[in-house]
Amino acid sequence: MTVSIAYLGPPGTYSEAAAIAYVDQLQQDTGEECLLCPYPSISQTLRAVARSQAQRAVVPVENSLEGSVPMTLDALWQLDSLQIQRALVLPISHALISPVQELSAIKTVYSHPQALAQCQGWLEQFLPAVQLIPTNSTTEAVQQLEGDRFAAAISSQRAAELYDLPIIAFPINDRPDNCTRFWVVSLQPSPGGAYTSLGFSVPANLPGALSQPLQVFASRGINLSRIESRPTKRSLGEYLFFLDLECDSRKSSVESAFQELRSHTETLKIFGSYDFVAIKSD
Amino acid sequence: MTVSIAYLGPPGTYSEAAAIAYVDQLQQDTGEECLLCPYPSISQTLRAVARSQAQRAVVPVENSLEGSVPMTLDALWQLDSLQIQRALVLPISHALISPVQELSAIKTVYSHPQALAQCQGWLEQFLPAVQLIPTNSTTEAVQQLEGDRFAAAISSQRAAELYDLPIIAFPINDRPDNCTRFWVVSLQPSPGGAYTSLGFSVPANLPGALSQPLQVFASRGINLSRIESRPTKRSLGEYLFFLDLECDSRKSSVESAFQELRSHTETLKIFGSYDFVAIKSD
Repeated sequence: MTVSIAYLGPPGTYSEAAAIAYVDQLQQDTGEECLLCPYPSISQTLRAVARSQAQRAVVPVENSLEGSVPMTLDALWQLDSLQIQRALVLPISHALISPVQELSAIKTVYSHPQALAQCQGWLEQFLPAVQLIPTNSTTEAVQQLEGDRFAAAISSQRAAELYDLPIIAFPINDRPDNCTRFWVVSLQPSPGGAYTSLGFSVPANLPGALSQPLQVFASRGINLSRIESRPTKRSLGEYLFFLDLECDSRKSSVESAFQELRSHTETLKIFGSYDFVAIKSD
Repeated sequence: MTVSIAYLGPPGTYSEAAAIAYVDQLQQDTGEECLLCPYPSISQTLRAVARSQAQRAVVPVENSLEGSVPMTLDALWQLDSLQIQRALVLPISHALISPVQELSAIKTVYSHPQALAQCQGWLEQFLPAVQLIPTNSTTEAVQQLEGDRFAAAISSQRAAELYDLPIIAFPINDRPDNCTRFWVVSLQPSPGGAYTSLGFSVPANLPGALSQPLQVFASRGINLSRIESRPTKRSLGEYLFFLDLECDSRKSSVESAFQELRSHTETLKIFGSYDFVAIKSD
């Protein structure tokens, strides 16, 4: 049977690189055949799995420089039924791709806002006068070069290969340890592992409304590895909280923590327990 | 003496609307003359004040639907010397601006990614097949219409006036209570008020590292109105935390809370105490 894997396309994006690495792991582990299916947005990628149009999705969660990917948290909260199967950490190295011969000829640089932000220092040093234009994905940036002879794109080495365009500088990200974390999600129960992710809303905006839920884990020696707040979209000042914890929800001590947590939260959603897998750079 | 006010330009953006409202308040309160100075990015807007090129800056902090504006938190942390003088809450109503006569003629919609997200439902209902193209600001979206006869822009009513273009639908935001919070910052000490904002890093990634700082305020009955985490940019999994508290840092009980907080944090930066001022919509 072929497993269909949804990801944020088009081909050439870092999401595709993460999805390809996941497929390689899966084929080694289980020998399963996989089919990669690009989708135009993160919410459509996740909805494809919620509606059983694809069996798994690979979506970005956070970048070491630019932080959280809010769309992923919002969609996971709304869709409700998805469970995290695995986390992948992908090293990110950006290339400057352009048909021009010299840097001085470049008037415009296209890329995804996160990639532009990650190369901000390099751009200020080597291309201080260019116009920076945001695109929906790093691959779309490369597609823009067709109609613009004095432009460059910030994208992956693989995108340069796919579109047969030269790389004129590499790597250009300001920090060499730039990496992005992805989640693999599906409708199946999560397999268990060293990390647990959950989201909750609090019953009222009162002193201690957030510190009480956090205290549930601190008092049990469970480490919080990440916290994000997102607006409930009901009114300014009301939030949902997303936590990553270093624990396995299958343990009885963690189960009792979740029971106590329910008394301090309005809505609680457990997105599953899973392990981290690092992806080697090419 | 003329007070120069930096904001995220160009003219026609919602940041300009907030800056204009602030200037109106200032002229009523003090009679001071003001000069509005547009800057191309949030970090340049704040740096202009840190370098004394402008005396105050008006910058977006969070939107009720799309959440935090990470660039503002990152720049405030890095620049260190800026203090919050006032918070402004601006109602946001988006207009669909285009030279076309009918919706069916529109092939492309330009806008800032936050504005596109805020009108997602409307777009899916009335313009399901158009291409959505992100721009650096809502005003830049209107500027794109000059070269594209089958396009529309999502922007403010004022931008339509400034560029003398027709509004073909208004309001098109999915929620009527959409609003954005701005901060007015300067190099002067903050005036004091009902809200205090601060940021901190924690000494080690251990159980309770975040719940201890929050407990400092919960135990004193001080309500936390917002928490945001941002990557330290040192390595994946290390965060800075930004808190808004319902308290005035000039009170002695709050001062003692800050002293206790120092023992639970690595670096602590107090951005000041200030009041909220609502802005009426036009």
